[in-house]
Amino acid sequence: MSSAPALAPGKPHAADLRIDGQRLWDSLMTLAKIGATAKGGVRRLALTELDGQARDLVARWLREAGCSIHVDAIGNIFGIRPGALGDGFGPDGQPAADIRHRAVAIGSHIDTQPSGGRFDGNYGVMAGLEVLRTLQQAGVRTQRPLAVAIWTNEEGTRFTPVMMGSGAWCGAFSYEHCLAQADRDGTTVGQALADIGYDGTAVPPRFSAYLEPHIEQGPVLEHEGITIGAVEGALGQRWFDVVANGQDAHAGPTPIEMRRDALLAASRLVQEVRRIAIEHPDYARGTVGQLFVTPNSRNVIPGKVEFSVDLRNAKDETLDAMSASLRAAVQRIASEEQVEISLNEVVYFPPCAFEGSLVNAIEEGARVRGYPVRRLASGAGHDAVYVARTCPTAMIFVPCEGGISHNEIENASPSDLAAGCDVLLGVVLREAGVAVE
Amino acid sequence: MSSAPALAPGKPHAADLRIDGQRLWDSLMTLAKIGATAKGGVRRLALTELDGQARDLVARWLREAGCSIHVDAIGNIFGIRPGALGDGFGPDGQPAADIRHRAVAIGSHIDTQPSGGRFDGNYGVMAGLEVLRTLQQAGVRTQRPLAVAIWTNEEGTRFTPVMMGSGAWCGAFSYEHCLAQADRDGTTVGQALADIGYDGTAVPPRFSAYLEPHIEQGPVLEHEGITIGAVEGALGQRWFDVVANGQDAHAGPTPIEMRRDALLAASRLVQEVRRIAIEHPDYARGTVGQLFVTPNSRNVIPGKVEFSVDLRNAKDETLDAMSASLRAAVQRIASEEQVEISLNEVVYFPPCAFEGSLVNAIEEGARVRGYPVRRLASGAGHDAVYVARTCPTAMIFVPCEGGISHNEIENASPSDLAAGCDVLLGVVLREAGVAVE
Repeated sequence: MSSAPALAPGKPHAADLRIDGQRLWDSLMTLAKIGATAKGGVRRLALTELDGQARDLVARWLREAGCSIHVDAIGNIFGIRPGALGDGFGPDGQPAADIRHRAVAIGSHIDTQPSGGRFDGNYGVMAGLEVLRTLQQAGVRTQRPLAVAIWTNEEGTRFTPVMMGSGAWCGAFSYEHCLAQADRDGTTVGQALADIGYDGTAVPPRFSAYLEPHIEQGPVLEHEGITIGAVEGALGQRWFDVVANGQDAHAGPTPIEMRRDALLAASRLVQEVRRIAIEHPDYARGTVGQLFVTPNSRNVIPGKVEFSVDLRNAKDETLDAMSASLRAAVQRIASEEQVEISLNEVVYFPPCAFEGSLVNAIEEGARVRGYPVRRLASGAGHDAVYVARTCPTAMIFVPCEGGISHNEIENASPSDLAAGCDVLLGVVLREAGVAVE
Repeated sequence: MSSAPALAPGKPHAADLRIDGQRLWDSLMTLAKIGATAKGGVRRLALTELDGQARDLVARWLREAGCSIHVDAIGNIFGIRPGALGDGFGPDGQPAADIRHRAVAIGSHIDTQPSGGRFDGNYGVMAGLEVLRTLQQAGVRTQRPLAVAIWTNEEGTRFTPVMMGSGAWCGAFSYEHCLAQADRDGTTVGQALADIGYDGTAVPPRFSAYLEPHIEQGPVLEHEGITIGAVEGALGQRWFDVVANGQDAHAGPTPIEMRRDALLAASRLVQEVRRIAIEHPDYARGTVGQLFVTPNSRNVIPGKVEFSVDLRNAKDETLDAMSASLRAAVQRIASEEQVEISLNEVVYFPPCAFEGSLVNAIEEGARVRGYPVRRLASGAGHDAVYVARTCPTAMIFVPCEGGISHNEIENASPSDLAAGCDVLLGVVLREAGVAVE
């Protein structure tokens, strides 16, 4: 905040504020009823009638917490709670020219996977709501405005691309392109938005800072007994299609030394992908998730194997080194196994480094409140990755049971969720400043 | 033949006899017209109308070469050319009690794979026919009778089990069981035999020796520039179903060291299967031909992999050692990868050793005629494996192009086919003895 205008120092009263964990949990459980599944999960696909119901509910809650509601052309919902410096817009109705007058935002999404859980996305929005309710209840006004953002179609299962709302908002793709995308039934995003009444016209706000609380969707925090993850960034990704072409032949008459077995070549590369991940620093990941064998018959040596490689890393140069190592392994194994192997990159997402001062603030906030904390990277994509293109951004992770997400059995403990929200409150107050309490 | 009765020694004239390679080739090509495919292969499934046409043609050719035709209850066709010692049957119409009076037989099959070639099976039958024609033309009568056997449904693609005719004939399964087997349309073997007029009633002959010439269906002979394979036996087989159960999880957030990746475990076992084959003697083979990944999604760590293992060896004790090595590898890798792995044996065929004296005779016959020869094992099953349960048996392999079989592009050279048939003639004369020329 060194570049921000002088703000009234946070009074002890505000610094001692705590969110209401029970209220947060109750909100999550109430929201989870919309699209609830028999197995305890949620099925609430983007821009369906159920999504509309959930949007209506959360928008009402945000209004009750002192927000004005702004819906932009792609259906992103922004609940804005004015601060002493205004509502984040200038006299012309456009985002304030001085970014220091813009809102400190908290956001995520409330659409779900087809067999989704109660926490993915929903937690970030409900945590933002809980921060506003806490301030409202305590009569605390911030210097900067606050915002809660609900991004449209983060999951990308009904409409592509994923993270559509935040991507369009930050300029990664145009609103027009997104509005024209159709689901399997031919319904476009534009039509679906109109159907649920979220084809908005509001000028979307810009932010001075953005925070996204989220369940980890991985096993690290739970495994290490840590409550708060201070997320340093999101891993870059390079995805490859690999095709190994050998020679299919009868498994009986063909001696081992005369084979050109595509599955042997592929299985060596599966090992290499792990080796590459282990040998590289910076949160390296390497995964072969998909693999098809042809002709896939018990007594026929596989002539062709097609598989995917997914490499991830927090640093672009390390990700490049991993790709180079993969290419070298492909060449070596192709030669040794007498199998032709092609490697084609099909997806590239650059790594995203979050704002160091925010990550520090999360870490510090957790320590002050007595929550075990560690830094980590987000292995998956989140709206925060797009938002980070426009303003200082960070994420707060809390543990989820068994690291399981995108699943109806997704679970998280009320106390961990409350802890993450409590840390969020502290960082929000630090960023937005306290004007009146 | 040390146990056979004294026979007239082969006169120089008979020993100098040579088969007619062009006639052999022409017969193969004429037979290949029945069910010929556009790509140069043959589609002539067991007991179809086309199979009936082929049977009629070959039976006529056998009659013209001096045979009586005997069709048994499962449709096996035996063309029997009497020798000085009779036709192989006793006065009671049953196979001669003295096995030394029984026929020296040559056989194989004329049914094909759905996309089959011109040589698989057909070569053995046509080679037998060519031997008889050669003797007929030269006016040579043998001591023992000769027989050409055409076994029903060797391929097993329309009706199971495979090698049905020879299996029923040798008592591996009952005629009744085989006759009741139905194809996908519900037509039984018994009905299909009646439809083409091959529901015979003849007493099937027994043999004093059996020889089956065949294309190798593998790459060894061609690769080594060898014309004749003296087949020592058929490999035993143990087939396994393997299931590796780990934990599926998101490829992004899950660090390498916390994964339980079923595909990593499976791919290590794919390597182990090759190692096991390399480290064991006696024509060891090891193949993973089939592999299925679940959920098989690019960015999900595979939770489950199911795959097949096919182990083969010429010696039962070595095959057992290979299985033990596989079990040990499964245990070790399951523990190291924290993945549960189950291993179930689903098929066991014992190894089959052919008759040493016949294998020697083939080798010797090839040397005398100036053909490069080597011993090898049959990696695949053949009717000879069942026949070997009843009498001294061996196989003669000739090269096939690229080792490719069960394919319309299956090919073999006229000169190699002639060479194999020529060696066959020599061994047949040695076994049957020459009575009159």
